[in-house]
Amino acid sequence: MLRIIALGGLGEIGLNMTVFESDDARLVVDAGLMFPEDYMLGVDFVIPDMSYLRRHPSRTLGVVLTHAHEDHIGALPYLLREIDAPIFGTAFTLGLVRQKLEELEVAAPGGLHVISCERPLAIGPFTLDFIRVGHSVVDGVGIAIDTPEGLVVHTGDFKLSRTADGSGTDVQKFSRCGERGVLALLSDSTNIEREGATVPDSRIAETFTQIVEKSPGRIIVALFASNIGRIQTIVDIARQAGRKVIISGRSIEASAEIAKALGYLTVPRDTDVSIDLLEDYPGEDIVIITTGSQGEPMSALARMASGTHKQIKIQPGDTVVLSSKFIPGNERAIGKIIDNLYRRGADVIYEKISDIHVSGHAFRDELKQMIRLTRPRHFVPVHGEYRHLVLHARLAREMGIDEGRILLAENGQVIEFEKGVGRIAGCVDTGRVLVDGKGVGDVGRAVLKERRVLSEEGVVAVTMALDEATGIIMYGPEIVSRGVVFETATGHLLQDAHCVVLEVVEELSPETPDRVERMSSRIQTALRQYFFYTIGRRPVILPFIMEV
Amino acid sequence: MLRIIALGGLGEIGLNMTVFESDDARLVVDAGLMFPEDYMLGVDFVIPDMSYLRRHPSRTLGVVLTHAHEDHIGALPYLLREIDAPIFGTAFTLGLVRQKLEELEVAAPGGLHVISCERPLAIGPFTLDFIRVGHSVVDGVGIAIDTPEGLVVHTGDFKLSRTADGSGTDVQKFSRCGERGVLALLSDSTNIEREGATVPDSRIAETFTQIVEKSPGRIIVALFASNIGRIQTIVDIARQAGRKVIISGRSIEASAEIAKALGYLTVPRDTDVSIDLLEDYPGEDIVIITTGSQGEPMSALARMASGTHKQIKIQPGDTVVLSSKFIPGNERAIGKIIDNLYRRGADVIYEKISDIHVSGHAFRDELKQMIRLTRPRHFVPVHGEYRHLVLHARLAREMGIDEGRILLAENGQVIEFEKGVGRIAGCVDTGRVLVDGKGVGDVGRAVLKERRVLSEEGVVAVTMALDEATGIIMYGPEIVSRGVVFETATGHLLQDAHCVVLEVVEELSPETPDRVERMSSRIQTALRQYFFYTIGRRPVILPFIMEV
Repeated sequence: MLRIIALGGLGEIGLNMTVFESDDARLVVDAGLMFPEDYMLGVDFVIPDMSYLRRHPSRTLGVVLTHAHEDHIGALPYLLREIDAPIFGTAFTLGLVRQKLEELEVAAPGGLHVISCERPLAIGPFTLDFIRVGHSVVDGVGIAIDTPEGLVVHTGDFKLSRTADGSGTDVQKFSRCGERGVLALLSDSTNIEREGATVPDSRIAETFTQIVEKSPGRIIVALFASNIGRIQTIVDIARQAGRKVIISGRSIEASAEIAKALGYLTVPRDTDVSIDLLEDYPGEDIVIITTGSQGEPMSALARMASGTHKQIKIQPGDTVVLSSKFIPGNERAIGKIIDNLYRRGADVIYEKISDIHVSGHAFRDELKQMIRLTRPRHFVPVHGEYRHLVLHARLAREMGIDEGRILLAENGQVIEFEKGVGRIAGCVDTGRVLVDGKGVGDVGRAVLKERRVLSEEGVVAVTMALDEATGIIMYGPEIVSRGVVFETATGHLLQDAHCVVLEVVEELSPETPDRVERMSSRIQTALRQYFFYTIGRRPVILPFIMEV
Repeated sequence: MLRIIALGGLGEIGLNMTVFESDDARLVVDAGLMFPEDYMLGVDFVIPDMSYLRRHPSRTLGVVLTHAHEDHIGALPYLLREIDAPIFGTAFTLGLVRQKLEELEVAAPGGLHVISCERPLAIGPFTLDFIRVGHSVVDGVGIAIDTPEGLVVHTGDFKLSRTADGSGTDVQKFSRCGERGVLALLSDSTNIEREGATVPDSRIAETFTQIVEKSPGRIIVALFASNIGRIQTIVDIARQAGRKVIISGRSIEASAEIAKALGYLTVPRDTDVSIDLLEDYPGEDIVIITTGSQGEPMSALARMASGTHKQIKIQPGDTVVLSSKFIPGNERAIGKIIDNLYRRGADVIYEKISDIHVSGHAFRDELKQMIRLTRPRHFVPVHGEYRHLVLHARLAREMGIDEGRILLAENGQVIEFEKGVGRIAGCVDTGRVLVDGKGVGDVGRAVLKERRVLSEEGVVAVTMALDEATGIIMYGPEIVSRGVVFETATGHLLQDAHCVVLEVVEELSPETPDRVERMSSRIQTALRQYFFYTIGRRPVILPFIMEV
């Protein structure tokens, strides 16, 4: 019997992690993270709950990574705390993984093993045949997994339009899977809401060529550090126009180094220039490639926009290109950067007004094509929020796959295949684990709720010491607030709060049983009412009353 | 001399407020609010800083409102604290304003005066001729203002495509302004990034007709409460299909009542049904019109999605239509609601997958057309973030307006016109005022910064009493945290923190001068280091040390 269980990625964008089981043998595909949602205050990122794997760590025989994006590899350092299986991936993927593990000082006791699309890989009862896919990072693969119950195809993240290096997705190989007979297709649902097909990267190259021709001064391109294909496109166009290229920024320099070493990126020596030599060239001879296209506040681009970048001061004549999508949630931050670049006199080109970005995820027509190529017996939509999975399931239905063979599962649900028949059978524990600083899982619902209240209302602490014998105030009440009101306004406000506290103390005679507890609770109530009445807010009240 | 000063709306979406001055006579157009940005934690909304008007309150002779959206009328209750001038607006606009002022118990000492597009209005040296504009709220106007220096046209928010009621923008009247000669055009820049023109509302009506035909059960439409035109469209289509209409939700019921009273909305008696009678009709006979299309957590739609709505339980067969834009920043909340509606078995139709919404703001082609109609001598882009103003200014340049006569101003900059020549001359104080609960302007940069730290890291309070004579600890240290870690984890963590505090106390002998101050500061440092080392976080440390 074959069991497929997603520990993440079904019902969310990110956290991709899928477990394949045949008897006691386990294979894990991807181990991704997700960036925190708005309500996850102070959280750095989110990883899947891996307690299911923790229970029988030795059953996991291998971890296979489809490509080098964080939503597929970001949780690997945490997975390696649970299991010591070997890690498999293409050369570029493992290049970035190695760097990440070194930075975090995490060991991979089972080793990192480079895979190739030319060489099938046996892991326990599974035989994996890798299929090259086009995506917004180089060296991505889909996987055809031969299992005792039949062939399962996992697309990974893919698109079918031509990629920058001309290679793109190996549709023949997917088609050959279809000819052999596919038990189940697990397919990327990210862009199911978008009609038609992604435009080929060559369209983006044309736009860049025009930008390079028209721009009178420096051109600064911001994109994702791992988008090596697009970096190569820009390098080629710059070189043809006689411009030098400066690749600047910690993460992009690191990923470019890895790509160069593996032959995925070529920057000819006569084109490659260090940022330290920027001043030696006139603006019209320069293209700078950097990061920060999502409005990240500490990025090179944000510092250029705010005028705090050490080497690069934006000036009239500069052209800044944001070559990436506006990820929902980041629009306002990106907008602010664009505004400030305009204020400094630069021209700014971005997705909304020019074709300078294309998604790495297949649109509807390409998703249809994938179903046509593989002609699967069962269909499992993966990688998407619940609505994406629903819409992708509907598409499969329209393509002629029987309702009963479309398996719309969420995280933790067990998809079981036996004798050619698939069904959803029970579920295992799963969930999300929040990572905050060094803490993994120590921030949960209760802490987030406290943070939310603190963030919206602030905190007021009241300290007071009472004489144990007489009950008379020996010290205080001292009142301190944070995040409530301006300090100048605080003065008058806290003075009145002082009186509110004194009234409570007077009301409770020294003989009152449990006087301190009662006083604490009454002070909370009285101050809560006072602040709500005067300023319409409900700060957290922390009373400290001691008897000495 | 004519002076035009924006106190809000130039460099931001929202806060629209423009002052026209001729000698000492002032006219204010609009008084809008803005919803808080992400970093404005706990803030309810934002209004323009009106201190410029406050200095000479009697100079303001009138306030004119172009339409009933919050970004044009939301700051009016606060403006009325500063000035007592009469308020002018169309019947529907004033209907909503009256309701708002009553709710907030704000008086309008100068009265509310209904204007009409058929009747010019004289306010001091200005004569205002109102021009009907099509927008996503009924009864909107642009204004042709005759000033001693010439004719100034302010478009208000507009689009040129046909609106639901077939009326739309009065292009002839704009054109007649052009024939008379326009000194300056102030035009809405919101959608300058969008190519082409808005589709007519009739396209939306077609989509709705198809949805009504295809839906087997109840149809629930969520939209903005003030979008009366679209409500009428839905009512008409529902009636034709023999369905009853239930309008449900506090804000939408209120705005529908006002619109009905003024003749802007007609719901025939045989169609109008109260929500209490919902159970009396089969699902296929019902259309429910409600709010919550932006994912607002307390809205009717959110409660339906979470299964907590009292009267409406979502079930298979229901069709939910979100007839509005996904406003940036709200995507995730909207997405969650769609996901949960799908989980409950409803079909969900939304902007990304169907034509069920059209913007109320002109796209590029319509903005060009507005320039063509009015042929202005000067051009002032308004209503937009800085990049929108820049792009709109460029469009004007492309349309043949001289660079020198395009006035790209930001909030507070004074645009001066004298003898047919306009220029930017100096600036006045302006800014944003944050409203939080009852507080107006008492939350600023410092408070927001405190809230941000509290929200991301939490707070740890340490209380301790020392014997004044001996320096020995008489009480404590008591340590309490909020928003730092789980309570179970807190135990062990705070126990160790306890030891850290005791160490600091021991290090400082009772003879140390300023012992309490030093102790406070050292405890802060030591605990900050301790928490950063153990959990990688930097909570706010509040030490309270008293000598008794």
